[in-house]
Amino acid sequence: MDSDLVAKQFVEYYYSTFDTNRAGLASLYQESSMLTFEGTKTQGAAAIVAKLAGLPFQQCHHAVSTIDCQPSGPAGGILVFVSGQLQLAGEQHALKFSQMFHLMPHQGSFFVLNDIFRLNYA
Amino acid sequence: MDSDLVAKQFVEYYYSTFDTNRAGLASLYQESSMLTFEGTKTQGAAAIVAKLAGLPFQQCHHAVSTIDCQPSGPAGGILVFVSGQLQLAGEQHALKFSQMFHLMPHQGSFFVLNDIFRLNYA
Repeated sequence: MDSDLVAKQFVEYYYSTFDTNRAGLASLYQESSMLTFEGTKTQGAAAIVAKLAGLPFQQCHHAVSTIDCQPSGPAGGILVFVSGQLQLAGEQHALKFSQMFHLMPHQGSFFVLNDIFRLNYA
Repeated sequence: MDSDLVAKQFVEYYYSTFDTNRAGLASLYQESSMLTFEGTKTQGAAAIVAKLAGLPFQQCHHAVSTIDCQPSGPAGGILVFVSGQLQLAGEQHALKFSQMFHLMPHQGSFFVLNDIFRLNYA
């Protein structure tokens, strides 16, 4: 398995889905999944997707600047660390963000066990 | 175990050691430890500490803005996600950074299995 390739493909899929069909992210999470979004914790696929759907912006575009990844241990997980810019519709300036994902193998693919998002205020 | 407390104590120890006695970070890493610093990968405690010692700045101060943490799975690990500012001696402006650590339990304490650092350029 090429962790770098998995990470790159995951990141492309995650943000393109976030930006075009946010509800479609549900398939990436499971009941054990955790999201910490700007310090607020949510657990479980349904609650996580509800949290993302309820964010105070609808149209947005994520532009990824960097992707780093490392294997997370013997269970076969992959840690993915992303930095980038989030452009909200109608806003002049993009917001910088950092986000990390912990991908765990599941039925020949991966799901997101851990997800932590932070804006990097200028 | 209180993950939030472990994360907070780790972060305080890590950055105070980095800023006052960088070589002292060696005890936090093991041979399996991985560091990705601004995209450059290093593995093993000795190589990681050599990498950190060789960074092109000596005096610095890390100011932590946010700490988020989540359990990383059944092995008892803790993911720690930090944002903050790095002030280098002689520089007017601090640099924003984001960093994640994956702490794994070991002999009653924790070691750093994964460490990913990125500057968030303004």
